[in-house]
Amino acid sequence: MKLLPDHLLEGYRSFIEGRYLAETQTYRALARDGQTPETMVIACCDSRAAPETIFGSAPGELFVVRNVANLVPPYSPDGEFHGTSAALEFAVAALKVKHIVVMGHGRCGGISAALSPDAEPLSKGDFIGKWMSLVRPAAEAVGANALMTAGERQTALERISIRHSVASLRSFPDIAAREAAGELSLHGAWFDISSGELWAMDPQTGDFERPLAGIEPLPTSG
Amino acid sequence: MKLLPDHLLEGYRSFIEGRYLAETQTYRALARDGQTPETMVIACCDSRAAPETIFGSAPGELFVVRNVANLVPPYSPDGEFHGTSAALEFAVAALKVKHIVVMGHGRCGGISAALSPDAEPLSKGDFIGKWMSLVRPAAEAVGANALMTAGERQTALERISIRHSVASLRSFPDIAAREAAGELSLHGAWFDISSGELWAMDPQTGDFERPLAGIEPLPTSG
Amino acid sequence: MKLLPDHLLEGYRSFIEGRYLAETQTYRALARDGQTPETMVIACCDSRAAPETIFGSAPGELFVVRNVANLVPPYSPDGEFHGTSAALEFAVAALKVKHIVVMGHGRCGGISAALSPDAEPLSKGDFIGKWMSLVRPAAEAVGANALMTAGERQTALERISIRHSVASLRSFPDIAAREAAGELSLHGAWFDISSGELWAMDPQTGDFERPLAGIEPLPTSG
Amino acid sequence: MKLLPDHLLEGYRSFIEGRYLAETQTYRALARDGQTPETMVIACCDSRAAPETIFGSAPGELFVVRNVANLVPPYSPDGEFHGTSAALEFAVAALKVKHIVVMGHGRCGGISAALSPDAEPLSKGDFIGKWMSLVRPAAEAVGANALMTAGERQTALERISIRHSVASLRSFPDIAAREAAGELSLHGAWFDISSGELWAMDPQTGDFERPLAGIEPLPTSG
Repeated sequence: MKLLPDHLLEGYRSFIEGRYLAETQTYRALARDGQTPETMVIACCDSRAAPETIFGSAPGELFVVRNVANLVPPYSPDGEFHGTSAALEFAVAALKVKHIVVMGHGRCGGISAALSPDAEPLSKGDFIGKWMSLVRPAAEAVGANALMTAGERQTALERISIRHSVASLRSFPDIAAREAAGELSLHGAWFDISSGELWAMDPQTGDFERPLAGIEPLPTSG
Repeated sequence: MKLLPDHLLEGYRSFIEGRYLAETQTYRALARDGQTPETMVIACCDSRAAPETIFGSAPGELFVVRNVANLVPPYSPDGEFHGTSAALEFAVAALKVKHIVVMGHGRCGGISAALSPDAEPLSKGDFIGKWMSLVRPAAEAVGANALMTAGERQTALERISIRHSVASLRSFPDIAAREAAGELSLHGAWFDISSGELWAMDPQTGDFERPLAGIEPLPTSG
Repeated sequence: MKLLPDHLLEGYRSFIEGRYLAETQTYRALARDGQTPETMVIACCDSRAAPETIFGSAPGELFVVRNVANLVPPYSPDGEFHGTSAALEFAVAALKVKHIVVMGHGRCGGISAALSPDAEPLSKGDFIGKWMSLVRPAAEAVGANALMTAGERQTALERISIRHSVASLRSFPDIAAREAAGELSLHGAWFDISSGELWAMDPQTGDFERPLAGIEPLPTSG
Repeated sequence: MKLLPDHLLEGYRSFIEGRYLAETQTYRALARDGQTPETMVIACCDSRAAPETIFGSAPGELFVVRNVANLVPPYSPDGEFHGTSAALEFAVAALKVKHIVVMGHGRCGGISAALSPDAEPLSKGDFIGKWMSLVRPAAEAVGANALMTAGERQTALERISIRHSVASLRSFPDIAAREAAGELSLHGAWFDISSGELWAMDPQTGDFERPLAGIEPLPTSG
């Protein structure tokens, strides 16, 4: 059996002969001195929305958590494992990032699942069902709106969920304190896979707008 | 306040004017037809080890979970939120990926924390402490080995942790079943940030070796 | 007292010395032969969203109804005056237009009023209140959604209202018949005053997308 | 099926690349600050008589109602929908416009229909018949005048109808009050499509004259 799938080995070869060769000194320095990213991104697992790709990031630039639907469970200092909370703690207390960006995207499978509450669980454990229950009240409210199209409901919940995750970030005492001290800022972003449009959340209103509208070269239509 | 940090907007501009422009049809098709990645990667949040970068991946190629130290909590169908289990369920039951790769890397901050059990918690919640307790027995055993250097203990636990996560994958009934049916294969990988070396786990022995040894242009200088 | 406001006389002078002079033969022919517009537009009274301006229209090109919030009251052959129904009848039965476009826009004052049901009537007659009651059920449903921002509720109702008006068009037997015969097509459009973006309704899904996305030169942000 | 007719998309492209590009700041300000038009125009749906074209208007300059034959139904605070009354209420009470212009034009199809009472209704609903009944007494009187030519009867009723609509405006208590207070002035205008002549109503006598006689470059040839 192959140690790794061919497509990974081929991709790695192109990386090592291209980008790594060009940025060797950067990688060496990052290894020697450790990482000092200024920005943490909480993104979705979706294969079409990698933050390093969309933000054209350099090695060492983004500290990235990826889970289904880029959710942030609220602060809950119990005895359980909390992967997202652990990553937040490391980013804020150890790396002292200056920005946390919750980044959602269009056509999100997790959000879509949340809008289909009557679908069969994917497995006995129903882990997606439990995970997406973090946005269940919003999903029920949005799902009940028959006046909006399926596409509009999906986009609405994707954006509501980003605002919800940003609010959850503030439930962490250290995050709230550093934001209050002006040492940390929280952001929301939404990427449209089809059109390539990037929308950013207005921190006052929660509305999403396009900070670089006009440069995207192509239609939104799928 | 800026809607998004400048470095993200600049990076996005280079993406949209470069890669997105070149791959527009791919993005459109991925939006229209949905994602069909063959491979899921469980990687670390570390800003120096983005799997899309190291594997030179195309949009739609990798379904990616990223948490601290690329850990896989064992199957536990309780009522709690399990972000990693939710992502696994979605990848295996909905996307039917053919490969799952647990990808670790050198100089991992989470592993380093696990090897410093007496350090102060990063916050009252001690989320890193709880999260890394997933590998505590191994961390204690390795940490007690005074014959290895600190660097050797770090690398040893990084690799033990990858084997541990691969074993946890098999605690999920659906994953074990699909692996037994030859529909899914599980892999381990380890990336050396400094040298750019990629090491892959031998599924029989658990040893790590370099599937492409020789193409990496540079020595493993620390 | 002036017969007409100065700004109208000045504007008329520029028209007569410019466009009219250039298109005299067109105006003469349109007077002699009568109008034969292919397209009817139902637009809002808003001073920022004139269809002839946004669609750069020539004289004779667009037959235009403008009322508050570009609404279409449903077919109701009673004894009352129905200005919009009269215009539809003339456009469809006499002019035999091939297209009817319901054109809404962002920041619509009528939609905004519909989302503020508890505001004081503008006058004893409360004509706006009665007129906007055409979309009251939708306004109540959307207005109740506290998870969406005020801006999102406004845009959602603007688009729902366009779909509602297109549906009302089909309540007119002659329109339904000519559409079924392929002699008439119904469209929805939405104009963003700030960004200049034009969004068009997908007749199958009702979703709005940008048929010419990418040519708009400027940000959406107000 | 096309989302929008080609001629609209082509016109929109010319708008966005031309006028919108030149007046972007105006549009942005109008979006941000809202509309503050000083003048409301009640015009006809006719494709040859767009007020923004004839008055060379800037975005934000004219609040425009367009219905068949630019009629103003009298004040009638019943339970019915009154699109024109709603627009008047919004313009006067919310926008506090300083001028209302009733603008008619030559060769008006609605007026022509009113002068052909024995013609077949355009549809079962006979919406044009009901709508034009607003000027029926005048239409009958003018129609009975065998001493005038058909063209003279048409022009006569077009102008009588404008005076009639201006009188209807005064049946609205708020309009009458604001006119009496000198805060609002009412005007009549008539546009000759063929010659480009603009005629304005003398508020004392009701006669129509040409406020800019002499600048129109062309004779009133039919």
